[in-house]
Amino acid sequence: MKLKRTHHCGKVTLEQKDKHVVVCGWVSNWRDLGGVFFIDLRDRYGSVQVMFSPSEDEAYQQSKKLRSEFVIAVSGKVMARPEENINSDLTTGAVEIYAEEMEILNTAKTPPFEIKDYVEASEDLRLKYRYLDLRRERLRDMMVYRHKIAQASRRFFSDEGFLEVETPVLTKSTPEGARDFLVPARLQHGQFFALPQSPQTYKQILMMAGLDKYFQVVKCFRDEDLRSDRQPEFTQIDVEMSFVEEEDVIDVVERFMEQLFADVLEVKLDLPLPRYTYKECMERYGSDKPDTRFGLEIQHLNEIFSATEFKIFRSVLDTGGRIGALVVNEAADFSRKQIDQLVEYMRSLGAGGLAHMKYKDGNFEGGISKFVSEAEQTALRSELALNENALILVVANENGETALSLLGFLRNKLGAQLELIDESLHTLHWTVDFPMFEYSEDEDRYVARHHPFTSPKLEHMDKLESEPGEVLARAYDLIYNGNEIAGGSIRIHTREVQQQVFDALKMGPEESEAKFGFLLEALEYGAPPHGGVAFGFDRLVMLMARANSIRDVIAFPKTASAVGLMENTPGPADEQQLRELGLKIADKK
Amino acid sequence: MKLKRTHHCGKVTLEQKDKHVVVCGWVSNWRDLGGVFFIDLRDRYGSVQVMFSPSEDEAYQQSKKLRSEFVIAVSGKVMARPEENINSDLTTGAVEIYAEEMEILNTAKTPPFEIKDYVEASEDLRLKYRYLDLRRERLRDMMVYRHKIAQASRRFFSDEGFLEVETPVLTKSTPEGARDFLVPARLQHGQFFALPQSPQTYKQILMMAGLDKYFQVVKCFRDEDLRSDRQPEFTQIDVEMSFVEEEDVIDVVERFMEQLFADVLEVKLDLPLPRYTYKECMERYGSDKPDTRFGLEIQHLNEIFSATEFKIFRSVLDTGGRIGALVVNEAADFSRKQIDQLVEYMRSLGAGGLAHMKYKDGNFEGGISKFVSEAEQTALRSELALNENALILVVANENGETALSLLGFLRNKLGAQLELIDESLHTLHWTVDFPMFEYSEDEDRYVARHHPFTSPKLEHMDKLESEPGEVLARAYDLIYNGNEIAGGSIRIHTREVQQQVFDALKMGPEESEAKFGFLLEALEYGAPPHGGVAFGFDRLVMLMARANSIRDVIAFPKTASAVGLMENTPGPADEQQLRELGLKIADKK
Repeated sequence: MKLKRTHHCGKVTLEQKDKHVVVCGWVSNWRDLGGVFFIDLRDRYGSVQVMFSPSEDEAYQQSKKLRSEFVIAVSGKVMARPEENINSDLTTGAVEIYAEEMEILNTAKTPPFEIKDYVEASEDLRLKYRYLDLRRERLRDMMVYRHKIAQASRRFFSDEGFLEVETPVLTKSTPEGARDFLVPARLQHGQFFALPQSPQTYKQILMMAGLDKYFQVVKCFRDEDLRSDRQPEFTQIDVEMSFVEEEDVIDVVERFMEQLFADVLEVKLDLPLPRYTYKECMERYGSDKPDTRFGLEIQHLNEIFSATEFKIFRSVLDTGGRIGALVVNEAADFSRKQIDQLVEYMRSLGAGGLAHMKYKDGNFEGGISKFVSEAEQTALRSELALNENALILVVANENGETALSLLGFLRNKLGAQLELIDESLHTLHWTVDFPMFEYSEDEDRYVARHHPFTSPKLEHMDKLESEPGEVLARAYDLIYNGNEIAGGSIRIHTREVQQQVFDALKMGPEESEAKFGFLLEALEYGAPPHGGVAFGFDRLVMLMARANSIRDVIAFPKTASAVGLMENTPGPADEQQLRELGLKIADKK
Repeated sequence: MKLKRTHHCGKVTLEQKDKHVVVCGWVSNWRDLGGVFFIDLRDRYGSVQVMFSPSEDEAYQQSKKLRSEFVIAVSGKVMARPEENINSDLTTGAVEIYAEEMEILNTAKTPPFEIKDYVEASEDLRLKYRYLDLRRERLRDMMVYRHKIAQASRRFFSDEGFLEVETPVLTKSTPEGARDFLVPARLQHGQFFALPQSPQTYKQILMMAGLDKYFQVVKCFRDEDLRSDRQPEFTQIDVEMSFVEEEDVIDVVERFMEQLFADVLEVKLDLPLPRYTYKECMERYGSDKPDTRFGLEIQHLNEIFSATEFKIFRSVLDTGGRIGALVVNEAADFSRKQIDQLVEYMRSLGAGGLAHMKYKDGNFEGGISKFVSEAEQTALRSELALNENALILVVANENGETALSLLGFLRNKLGAQLELIDESLHTLHWTVDFPMFEYSEDEDRYVARHHPFTSPKLEHMDKLESEPGEVLARAYDLIYNGNEIAGGSIRIHTREVQQQVFDALKMGPEESEAKFGFLLEALEYGAPPHGGVAFGFDRLVMLMARANSIRDVIAFPKTASAVGLMENTPGPADEQQLRELGLKIADKK
């Protein structure tokens, strides 16, 4: 490089007027205006216009070779643009660089898609040429965003006295219940490490080690069939504290959020954040992570229909089920097709169907209205505070929890479809008082709703054996615009309670010893009361940056089939590697 | 927890005199002084003395149950100690807490070793009970150190405009040449991810993506047979910059070091750091990472012995070898045994032996002195600036490079043995002008000394094919007290040069395409000139913290056989996991 950069392209302004600068970057636009050659030169920091004129003949002649994405260094004089040519959308829009010398640092083939935000390209192509996609402003901004949020997070926790401690990546199965990635151990024939699904046990061990306050921004791994917003490797902000109760963890997290939103989004959060119990969330919104940016709360109809003769409702009520409704104002003109689509959506979620009726001119009509008695109609009118032209969508299910969940999905769908959501809002709340266990029909036993190290509420300890379904956990989730961005709990800190919980989960002493023996033993050597929280970092960034996809906030994401399209991974292993690992590829099933 | 912590144990001082505090922690010492019960209560921040007196009967009675490592909360009043009881070694040494209420938060079994720095325990026991070892002051301080260095590093690079970008952990083989850890891909039968040995290719891709300045504090992995200072997973500070040459990277690194040493060690470094060429390092110190905290430089004897009749020297010189010596002043009284030990050490390194003679009262005696002619003695006297009572240790080897390396090891051994090293020094320098390749006898070809993406010096490009051994690389290593703590280079940024280097390495187009096809392709779409550096973070922390072992600066290290003793890993996989991965364990060889 003959020319040494003095300024970034995006930072050249009238402040440099009449000065000589050297800028380096990529040619993004070029136009030959007969006799004068203009280019826009782009780098991470922005773009600046460069003019090549015949009066600087050598540079001018060279400039004619330039094509999109050539990499160059240009030395020249900064000139003010004539008034009429000022581009006020650009920081650099009031200047242009009059080129005096130019060095072509590299050429470029024509890229498979143009490096412009507005150019559409298939996601597969964008992933294969990720280095080109990352040159675009939108994706570059996401990387800057992610960086800022990560650094601000670290600064906050570090300033609060938390120590960042790195926990192992080559470890053993973690208790999160998803599938582990395994790593064959070469020196131990037939044995495996597992990649961590979270540093849960290690962070508890660090509390037992007396480190008092720990955090880590850390990669975690799950070998699951990917949903659109999941990645096999993801990043977590992991936090743990000793000698604390719920309030202490919640307080730290709220102050963290306050600072992050102020620093990164310039948004002022009102603290303390509201807290809703799990029960309340389910009954009002049909979700433990409700989007409270809009209303459309669930209406409970069991009482109104207590004497119904309508067969479906009757049978649901007789088996202890639940009837609930959403009242959609101004939606009585929904077409048959629109309603059918909602029914279809509910069926895709496993619902038997979706009942509806309309409320127009004071009358119920259509759908199930003919099964609704006069008394029921009167009750509906007074209880539901009906507007004219309301559409009433009714879900009835023998499983009350299922009815609520279905209504929750329906509510979210309608919220999006009817644009009920004020996208400018940043709404955070805590969901608390989670049940400790949920019953798994598949496994015919209770399973932990969070993880088995979560402490039950102390006042529920005596129900662990007799009524596990009634036990609440000392757990809390942080919800942001309808997404769970963090979850945590106060942990069990005595071996006795831990064993009771394992018992409730029907995890025998052998299994618990094999999986968590070291943790159980550590509990006996002076474990302090402790608790913590973990943030899904990718999702937090995605939501704060208002990205469309989790893949847009990850530099090198995998596809939904867990493939790296750019580097072409996974790939075959050679014979010698497999031999050293003592492994054989089984025949294809 | 009835009692809520108000202060950390280690932070209670006279400032809190007469105030009521609540502290939480571990009982570290307890003594019953007939009628009054004293304990030292320890937390991460230090230790404070607590007194239980019968006048607070409930707490006093309870205190008698306390044993080592019980976890308690104590509320009480801070009192000044009587003058004669002040312990000026402790921040809290001027106070004690007069206990009024106490809560036993957890009991503890007797730990397998006492939680005191001075108590010796085998490393295996310490690793198994890592949470107990981490409670000790020395190890806890290492974790705090590591945290500080990591945060200071991030702050520096972030303030300099570098973006921290996370690169994938599930990736493909990297070009570092060590063995990869493999991760079987469940969704792609018979295929594997590899854990990265470094993010080398990704960080170059990020430069091609236009991100301009990148850094990351990142876990890397090598499945090697471990040496005492190696771990299968280790942490790297990884840095890359665009539009730069050697000076730019070196400048950033030097300012980073300046700030880190100032912030963490309060040591002022003199910049710029000295630079020595590889050749100079080898000839003066016999190492490319010499410890320049002491002299004992290599003396070159080829010329003096050019006419020697001494058979061994004659044969070495006739085959183009090298004779070199270390002159150890005041060591003429080394015993036979001491010299034999040095000979033994040299043999363990593969040397044929080690010649010696002594210089006493102006005369050469012992060892090989009888083979040294009068003329040679005169020359030695004038060239070596001999002190009285010097021991002269001579290495002769047909391979000149080997002779220098052997002398380098000998120099380090003597430096330690004779305590020539001023341990208070922090000596940093750059080693530059490395050869691009070294010849591998095993593989009968040249291999890359750094990695194959390192740029050759531009003025040596024409020797790539004809004289690869003469080509120097645009590489630089940072040496701290005789340890390589960072290495980097200016990278190749055109496909053409990259192909030439692959050719020189006898890496065919098929192999290079399979391994690095995406990088080669990316070089064609506008790759900027770029370069960078990577720090071995664990080693940097170990050296700055003056730890004895790399394991002391890692929270949960593996043993030399890559085993996790605490969590008992690796372990078996269950049948279903293997079936899902399409793998079989091969029969044991």
